[in-house]
Amino acid sequence: MASEKPQAAVTCTAPVNIAVIKYWGKRDEELVLPINSSLSVTLHQDQLKTTTTAVISKHFTKDRIWLNGREEDVGQPRLQACLREIRCLARKRRDSRDGDPLPSSLSCKVHVASVNNFPTAAGLASSAAGYACLAYTLARVYGVESDLSEVARQGSGSACRSLYGGFVEWQMGEQADGKDSIARQVAPESHWPELRVLILVVSAEKKLTGSTVGMRASVETSPLLRFRAESVVPARMAEMARCIRERDFPSFAQLTMKDSNQFHATCLDTFPPILYLNAISWRIIHLVHRFNAHHGDTKVAYTFDAGPNAVIFTLDDTVAEFVAAVRHGFPPGSNGDTFLKGLQVRPAPLSAELQAALAMEPTPGGVKYIIVTQVGPGPQILHDPCAHLLGPDGLPKPAA
Amino acid sequence: MASEKPQAAVTCTAPVNIAVIKYWGKRDEELVLPINSSLSVTLHQDQLKTTTTAVISKHFTKDRIWLNGREEDVGQPRLQACLREIRCLARKRRDSRDGDPLPSSLSCKVHVASVNNFPTAAGLASSAAGYACLAYTLARVYGVESDLSEVARQGSGSACRSLYGGFVEWQMGEQADGKDSIARQVAPESHWPELRVLILVVSAEKKLTGSTVGMRASVETSPLLRFRAESVVPARMAEMARCIRERDFPSFAQLTMKDSNQFHATCLDTFPPILYLNAISWRIIHLVHRFNAHHGDTKVAYTFDAGPNAVIFTLDDTVAEFVAAVRHGFPPGSNGDTFLKGLQVRPAPLSAELQAALAMEPTPGGVKYIIVTQVGPGPQILHDPCAHLLGPDGLPKPAA
Repeated sequence: MASEKPQAAVTCTAPVNIAVIKYWGKRDEELVLPINSSLSVTLHQDQLKTTTTAVISKHFTKDRIWLNGREEDVGQPRLQACLREIRCLARKRRDSRDGDPLPSSLSCKVHVASVNNFPTAAGLASSAAGYACLAYTLARVYGVESDLSEVARQGSGSACRSLYGGFVEWQMGEQADGKDSIARQVAPESHWPELRVLILVVSAEKKLTGSTVGMRASVETSPLLRFRAESVVPARMAEMARCIRERDFPSFAQLTMKDSNQFHATCLDTFPPILYLNAISWRIIHLVHRFNAHHGDTKVAYTFDAGPNAVIFTLDDTVAEFVAAVRHGFPPGSNGDTFLKGLQVRPAPLSAELQAALAMEPTPGGVKYIIVTQVGPGPQILHDPCAHLLGPDGLPKPAA
Repeated sequence: MASEKPQAAVTCTAPVNIAVIKYWGKRDEELVLPINSSLSVTLHQDQLKTTTTAVISKHFTKDRIWLNGREEDVGQPRLQACLREIRCLARKRRDSRDGDPLPSSLSCKVHVASVNNFPTAAGLASSAAGYACLAYTLARVYGVESDLSEVARQGSGSACRSLYGGFVEWQMGEQADGKDSIARQVAPESHWPELRVLILVVSAEKKLTGSTVGMRASVETSPLLRFRAESVVPARMAEMARCIRERDFPSFAQLTMKDSNQFHATCLDTFPPILYLNAISWRIIHLVHRFNAHHGDTKVAYTFDAGPNAVIFTLDDTVAEFVAAVRHGFPPGSNGDTFLKGLQVRPAPLSAELQAALAMEPTPGGVKYIIVTQVGPGPQILHDPCAHLLGPDGLPKPAA
């Protein structure tokens, strides 16, 4: 993509991913190497994505970055690590092809602009999509073709899982230099077309412990976390891969819930304890278990990251009834029309039996809205020049 | 105490205990044998106690029991286990002293009445005090002098710790028959006179998972619980005994908090997950950590059993300031006068610095009231016949 033109611009998109076997804890803070492998589902970019434009030019005097239209400090360590890593890969590639007429891109400074199509206020981990998109876009603009796990990972650990579509595992690796700590697709996005993902955005009141700080505290103080990483996760990784391979929804759902609960258990075992689930999160947990108990079958699963929002997995034939149950438990306020975002859901009645089984006092407004989505593909290049977030002057377009 | 009189009556009291190394999980449901040892502090009976009268008479036609004035089914298994166990011990004692003029009490039926001096609504585990008192009282009336751990334990596991004052460990034991699963005093009640215990009674809304059902579910489904029992608790038992022996409050306090958190973490790791802490519990947790951070020293500890109420440990010189902090965080409603029960606490101002450090939006009424108490002695015999809860007819006195 890089060229001898004075300027090269590339725009890409990357997805959000949701871990079903959770990543919590680094064995190497610098290289972002995890204490256990993890496994995630890549969400569809029709609903949630980051878009990033990178422009390199001989005329730029320094690296610059804009996030959601606001210029940020390009000197922050994680960002610097990504830039350093991608330029290192580009240099290796040049050196391995010596004699080729080569782009001078390596000596160029870069301007980067990145936007999310979902509000940061949604509390969704935007850093994974953000750093995956940065790594992917920089790779294209600097002409790097190798595995980008290492680049994305050094921005944000879970970002390496957003480099692929479908179902993705991040193998923890064993080497000290992290070369074998890479993401790999377990199954493509087409593998399980019935799977649906609902994000229940919950009203949160307070500032949460950031995940970098939180996982460091857990590694240092939680005896249960070490045990989980060493003795529980390996078997769960294998079992989760099996559930996905065989499209065994009840087992997939139960393991997803158990692993989310165990992650939050290790947060509680951290000292001082870390709390991410709030009262609404717990109402959702109870709602899911009662919904499943009513059906005598595990038809819905929840998982929670480092915040109170629930991510729900279910199959297409269950979405409408589950949404009706959520509407019952958390009646929407004035936003009844915009309560559901994303994929269409046909209205469905809530049976009196299910309503009785839920045994819930409704909590109006407890869930702010629901994003309905599905499994999706990995990062994409946008070929339409209109998609660039940076103009010919290398500065954000007014619209961005 | 038993005699050849047609009737013998004994009345005893027994204390509540609060575990600082938690008991959660049985390895034998029948014999109530735990998967790990535990350690508790016996609370003073001036504030919290169970009083039990047992009467045996040749004229009674069946065993009967009244709890807080209401007759209950004497056939429930735990109660039957206690009665069977005590009669078995009485029989052994008689057989070992053959030739003695012996009471015929063994052939007598027993009437039992038991009352708590604290409301059941307080959510305090009354079963420990209740079964300890039952075992102790039955032992006196049947003339049993051996260790009562086994009797009390078969009523309610933690009841064996209420058989002693001060600081008490329940050794899990190794034998299949449970003969070595016994309570033992680590230090008497006089050992640490500065120690204070505050029970923060919290408004609870919902029915909780009972501890028998809850611990069975945890044993069956939580991988973390097994690890805790086998690999974490043994070292913690030794360390907690050291903290108590050396009256090392900061270490005692930190370990108490960590063990409470770990117990609740295993509840969260149970499937479906069990929740005992509510939003008010968490506000208390945050208040304690901020109080300690403000002082740059661990001056206060919390612990939570299978419910939302907090039990606070601190030293006498810190009680007044901590109570002021609780009053700030949870302003009492109309019960300002009766907010504090138990030991006197001098009013203390809350410094502006501490108030700022707490950084809490007040939650009026979140804590219903506080019981201020201290470490206390084990079960007591009451020699005043007026104390009997059962009249000469073997039925509850109108006052009881």
